[in-house]
Amino acid sequence: MTIATRMQRIQPFHVMALLARARELEAAGRSVIHMEIGEPDFMTPQPVIDAGHAALTAGLTHYTPATGLPALRERIAQYYLERYDVTVAPQRIVVTPGASSALQLVLSALVNPGDQVLLTDPGYPCNRNFVYLLNAEPVGMPVGAETAWQPSVQQVREHWSANTAALLLASPSNPTGTLLDPASIRGYLDIIRSQGGMLIIDEIYHGLTYGAAVPTALSISDEICVINSFSKYFGMTGWRLGWLVAPPALVPELDKLAQNLFLAAPTLSQHAALHAFDRDSIEILEQRRECFRQRRDYLLPALRALGFAIPVQPEGAFYLYADCSRFTDDSFALSNRLLEEAGVAITPGIDFGSYRASHHVRFAYTTSLENLQEGVRRLREYL
Amino acid sequence: MTIATRMQRIQPFHVMALLARARELEAAGRSVIHMEIGEPDFMTPQPVIDAGHAALTAGLTHYTPATGLPALRERIAQYYLERYDVTVAPQRIVVTPGASSALQLVLSALVNPGDQVLLTDPGYPCNRNFVYLLNAEPVGMPVGAETAWQPSVQQVREHWSANTAALLLASPSNPTGTLLDPASIRGYLDIIRSQGGMLIIDEIYHGLTYGAAVPTALSISDEICVINSFSKYFGMTGWRLGWLVAPPALVPELDKLAQNLFLAAPTLSQHAALHAFDRDSIEILEQRRECFRQRRDYLLPALRALGFAIPVQPEGAFYLYADCSRFTDDSFALSNRLLEEAGVAITPGIDFGSYRASHHVRFAYTTSLENLQEGVRRLREYL
Repeated sequence: MTIATRMQRIQPFHVMALLARARELEAAGRSVIHMEIGEPDFMTPQPVIDAGHAALTAGLTHYTPATGLPALRERIAQYYLERYDVTVAPQRIVVTPGASSALQLVLSALVNPGDQVLLTDPGYPCNRNFVYLLNAEPVGMPVGAETAWQPSVQQVREHWSANTAALLLASPSNPTGTLLDPASIRGYLDIIRSQGGMLIIDEIYHGLTYGAAVPTALSISDEICVINSFSKYFGMTGWRLGWLVAPPALVPELDKLAQNLFLAAPTLSQHAALHAFDRDSIEILEQRRECFRQRRDYLLPALRALGFAIPVQPEGAFYLYADCSRFTDDSFALSNRLLEEAGVAITPGIDFGSYRASHHVRFAYTTSLENLQEGVRRLREYL
Repeated sequence: MTIATRMQRIQPFHVMALLARARELEAAGRSVIHMEIGEPDFMTPQPVIDAGHAALTAGLTHYTPATGLPALRERIAQYYLERYDVTVAPQRIVVTPGASSALQLVLSALVNPGDQVLLTDPGYPCNRNFVYLLNAEPVGMPVGAETAWQPSVQQVREHWSANTAALLLASPSNPTGTLLDPASIRGYLDIIRSQGGMLIIDEIYHGLTYGAAVPTALSISDEICVINSFSKYFGMTGWRLGWLVAPPALVPELDKLAQNLFLAAPTLSQHAALHAFDRDSIEILEQRRECFRQRRDYLLPALRALGFAIPVQPEGAFYLYADCSRFTDDSFALSNRLLEEAGVAITPGIDFGSYRASHHVRFAYTTSLENLQEGVRRLREYL
């Protein structure tokens, strides 16, 4: 058996080993505060659960079209109008089994082996692995707090090469929770218009922002690909449902790929998701957003008071990316020590890239305020 | 925007256009007998639906581990023991979002760009496209009724090259419904043991066989990868759930890929599938198998009587792959004419490869016996 060469470049996530160790400790009776998990602690809103029951009762268990239920594509389009005041044709929307599949579809349709895809370092770790899957080259642009963890237009221009097929960014970003500003998006588009390529923006944490209303990148241009998900804001992780909005010319290619790669997104999930946009669902989701905001507003100053440096206030997602260089030059070792000795699980920077990774850790506020307070108490005692 | 070169090689399925045309005709009031659809007409068995309700009520909406719920991996292992008397360690089982993702995982872990993957022509059309996705080369081995549409050991030996990474076969096969015989499997393994590479056997139509009990290829060797699905025998297409059994050394690679490519299979589907193996589910499924057998036993002689040549009796799946050269040298044109002029939808051979494709069409018996009888009546009248 010969393993494909790409598998050497695709690394498992360190946090998975850390999570497994945390489960071991818990099984042995130890208490662990989980601030490593990238999944909302809330369950799916009851109106969506109810819609799932109704779909099951109606026996809706067969395949849907590869691009998704027409009614769901229309409902998502309507959501863009309601929430963002942006008109998106339903025909530009492709429903996928999670945002992961959306990322895979769009990269597979656009990226040849040997091509480059520009990403941020730090950034969502699966992104570079989707690029490796296609035997292409992820190019991490180092970003720091001084640019709110997003690349400057100048930086993108400098990294662009004849082989660059796409620029893939996230807003809000994982692990930093920071946003792209519209002026930068316009600047990236100027580069792409002259150089070719595609701007792909991951908006899966959209909806989970805690300041002024944030526009979707689709309000700036319809030449870009935008990826979104029912997992985070809508609290539907295990349903495996996402979507992407693409320029019209790309949709037939995505449809063709979807027919081959996954046939269709889960049918029950699609029927249930039709009700994720209902007024009673949105009310629940907005209460949860307020909970996340309260958690951020507690955790951010608490971590700063402990000595973690978080120079830019993260405006979204449920992460704080903290500089821990006051405590260590090895954030991976620190993460392990905090788990073993303080009973606090966090994610080491190395899972998100290499730039300043050993000086950073990610805290997720996907657990209750009480748990966060206990976690901070344990950190204070230990550090 | 520049589309990746692989997209030129990945073709849409002709049957999709035909299906869309059929829907148009139906919307205009015409009656169409559907014998083109590769999906069981039965809905999911009630005990599985009930388990889905229970999982929803319990709020089981979060992610599972990337390789699947441990309980489901164990239950699948138990099924191999109960049904096939084969011991499979649960740790070798990876639960996936449909067999499509299982195919993608195993090929991505084993196949480099430029490698060759041996397939049958005719064969399941997505297989070659999974290979194109990785910028590798599908090599179609022409197979005919004289070898029950499966390659001889000699044929595999002749097609094997230094670049061959895998041999991917299906038993029962789509579109032909024929089985691999154990002696051939042993012969393929001899080649692979001397040449390197992997034998991958798609058993997604297993369970849907109509003669003597058919052993799984896992009873012959644990060096192979076997892919299966809850879609066909278990009647769970829209739930998007499958699995694969791999050699132990490959599992960590598949786990790593699954973490990146799809995070996990749908949670509700996994909890529901735990009950697909219950005695009351299996009773329903066995009744359905008997229905499919009756349909085959009606349709096979009826098509032969009309002048279609089907020299080998298909033992499984729900397809008959018929030689239509008595009527045409262009099975694609015939399929279109039959839809437009006779109101019968079937799939042209070209969707399954190129070898003798213009002389073949696929009939699916995924509709009631009454519909099949009406379809045959229309065919008789038209032809």
